[in-house]
Amino acid sequence: MRSGWTLSDRTRLSEEERLDWLRLIRSANVGPRTFHDLVGYYGGIRPALTALPGLARRGGSTRPPRICSRAQAEAELKAARAAGVEFFAFGEPEYPTRLQMIDDPPPVIAVRGKLDTLARPLVAIVGSRNASAAGVKFAERIARDLGEAGIAIVSGLARGIDAAAHRASADTGTIAVLAGGHDRIYPAEHVDLVNRLVAEGAAISEMPFTWEPRAHDFPRRNRLISGLSLGVVVVEAARRSGSLITARLAGEQGREVFAVPGSPLDPRSTGTNGLLKQGAIPVTEAADVIAAIEPILGRGFDAPSAQEPSQEPLGLPDAEPDSDERVRLIAMLGPAPVSIDDLVRLSRTSATNVRSVLLELEIAGRLARHGAGLVSLL
Amino acid sequence: MRSGWTLSDRTRLSEEERLDWLRLIRSANVGPRTFHDLVGYYGGIRPALTALPGLARRGGSTRPPRICSRAQAEAELKAARAAGVEFFAFGEPEYPTRLQMIDDPPPVIAVRGKLDTLARPLVAIVGSRNASAAGVKFAERIARDLGEAGIAIVSGLARGIDAAAHRASADTGTIAVLAGGHDRIYPAEHVDLVNRLVAEGAAISEMPFTWEPRAHDFPRRNRLISGLSLGVVVVEAARRSGSLITARLAGEQGREVFAVPGSPLDPRSTGTNGLLKQGAIPVTEAADVIAAIEPILGRGFDAPSAQEPSQEPLGLPDAEPDSDERVRLIAMLGPAPVSIDDLVRLSRTSATNVRSVLLELEIAGRLARHGAGLVSLL
Repeated sequence: MRSGWTLSDRTRLSEEERLDWLRLIRSANVGPRTFHDLVGYYGGIRPALTALPGLARRGGSTRPPRICSRAQAEAELKAARAAGVEFFAFGEPEYPTRLQMIDDPPPVIAVRGKLDTLARPLVAIVGSRNASAAGVKFAERIARDLGEAGIAIVSGLARGIDAAAHRASADTGTIAVLAGGHDRIYPAEHVDLVNRLVAEGAAISEMPFTWEPRAHDFPRRNRLISGLSLGVVVVEAARRSGSLITARLAGEQGREVFAVPGSPLDPRSTGTNGLLKQGAIPVTEAADVIAAIEPILGRGFDAPSAQEPSQEPLGLPDAEPDSDERVRLIAMLGPAPVSIDDLVRLSRTSATNVRSVLLELEIAGRLARHGAGLVSLL
Repeated sequence: MRSGWTLSDRTRLSEEERLDWLRLIRSANVGPRTFHDLVGYYGGIRPALTALPGLARRGGSTRPPRICSRAQAEAELKAARAAGVEFFAFGEPEYPTRLQMIDDPPPVIAVRGKLDTLARPLVAIVGSRNASAAGVKFAERIARDLGEAGIAIVSGLARGIDAAAHRASADTGTIAVLAGGHDRIYPAEHVDLVNRLVAEGAAISEMPFTWEPRAHDFPRRNRLISGLSLGVVVVEAARRSGSLITARLAGEQGREVFAVPGSPLDPRSTGTNGLLKQGAIPVTEAADVIAAIEPILGRGFDAPSAQEPSQEPLGLPDAEPDSDERVRLIAMLGPAPVSIDDLVRLSRTSATNVRSVLLELEIAGRLARHGAGLVSLL
């Protein structure tokens, strides 16, 4: 549970607040983690927005950071709403509870379709784009059977397994998680599929409405596929495939990982068989998935405990690191990823100071985060 | 470790002793378990042979039991030896150590081929008779790769996967475990295969030299396939197949169970995928098997601790159950299998008496044993 930026009683944001949330997450160099850190440090969205120029300057940026203006945020909201897309912030009632549990939940999600779908038991089905006929057939079968059992199917709208899973569950409820914005469906040939699936399901994106998805947006998107779901079924996957990234993220997020076995002589099964070797649950029919998730459903689902937004900023402006500390810390960083824990230990300064300097560098566009608490200088 | 009928220091039997062992196990209604019980009760092979007629009479048999004569045993030895087959009793140096660890080891095994093979690290490869081309190809590949890694391959000489595994490891060492006698190779088309594989491997049987295998001899034989091996690899198996029996026995014997994944749409993979769901280790290459058995090999192998044959019979003839007890116990038995533990508890007589009556019934041909301590009246 993130501190400092959740809503107390899952009430809705005002339009002004929603615009502020959108402005902060749409500003340059602010990702979901940074968003959290900023709100934690400055005690709210508005103070965080106000702090951005100073942070960027201290982080070594020579020009002011690109901050999303109120007009830009309003324009996005307006265009998206015209296309039937609604925006929900972390903590609002429509924001999927399970997604709130992941490490780096999107502060704002844009949803088109039937909102109830988000609250249903969700299982992801993912796999190769160049799937075999047998793989497609299996994906259709299990998506249909899970759908008939009341489970909505999450996938990534890709060709092959993803599309087969969406199509077979379009009438019972399916969720397409987009790598780009709602106005840039990828691949374009699946625009019709999205238009069809939003009748009983939904399409979700954390990206700006007109965002053209790039290669690295897909692995980033995959954390939402697994994060929304009780478990991820990988149908066919070659050795290094996006589906394996989704499976890894599912494992890290504590979700069930299911793999469909395949012949060792079929390279499209290398990834799924590898998952089985790592302990994934073998799946040959919907009943295997249901048996594994039933206990989770049975015990219900605990939403993160509601918490007041911090009134007190966690990192007070007057407790800022002095410039010696800042210089020393930056000297310890380089292109090779190092862990934040090591930085704190080796720099002999406070964790708050280290996080503060890292935030400055990030807003200045000079820091890369690699997950698992690793950072490097860009 | 069986008490009462093992050899103290793995020395060889005399020819007379060997004939006695063979006579006892070849006598009617004496299986591996009964053999053990008899020797335990009567303190040796010869006294057990002598006790058979009395046991059969008390068990309710109207005619004397068919006891294998010295001449019959001699004839079998002679004919088999002429065909290059040697006989080894439980506890002799050539008797495979791992096979001694199972619940119901054959008292005598008949071996043709290179005896050293029995002492090598052994892995079984089994699967469907009507295997797919892919299954056969995979069996060949993994048998060859394991063979090159120094492992000898155990299988059941059946058509399909078994034969493929034997053929691919014929040059590196393979062991065919026969369901019938050495003089009745089944299927007959594999006589040439046996003749070829005995050069670097062996064929083993616990059955009389000229025994024609019947349907129920195959599941019985399967316990030797798993019992000889560190683990069993099931390549392809339909829902109810002999390979699954071998896998179950392997599990009961504490051996590794490996299963090759296959498409859920292929009925020949139903059994192997089912094994995966039950926790079998997924195998797509020889390295998977080697990784699992290496720790077992590494820690060496403890032979059962040597033990003197009991000098004292465990069940003294004068402690025999009286006829009332006998009648009462028999009345408690019927065609439905009951557990020996329940019999002891419900009959309120001693476990020794219960076992003694069961032994009598068995020698009289009136008792069926079902494993797991279950018996029924025939």
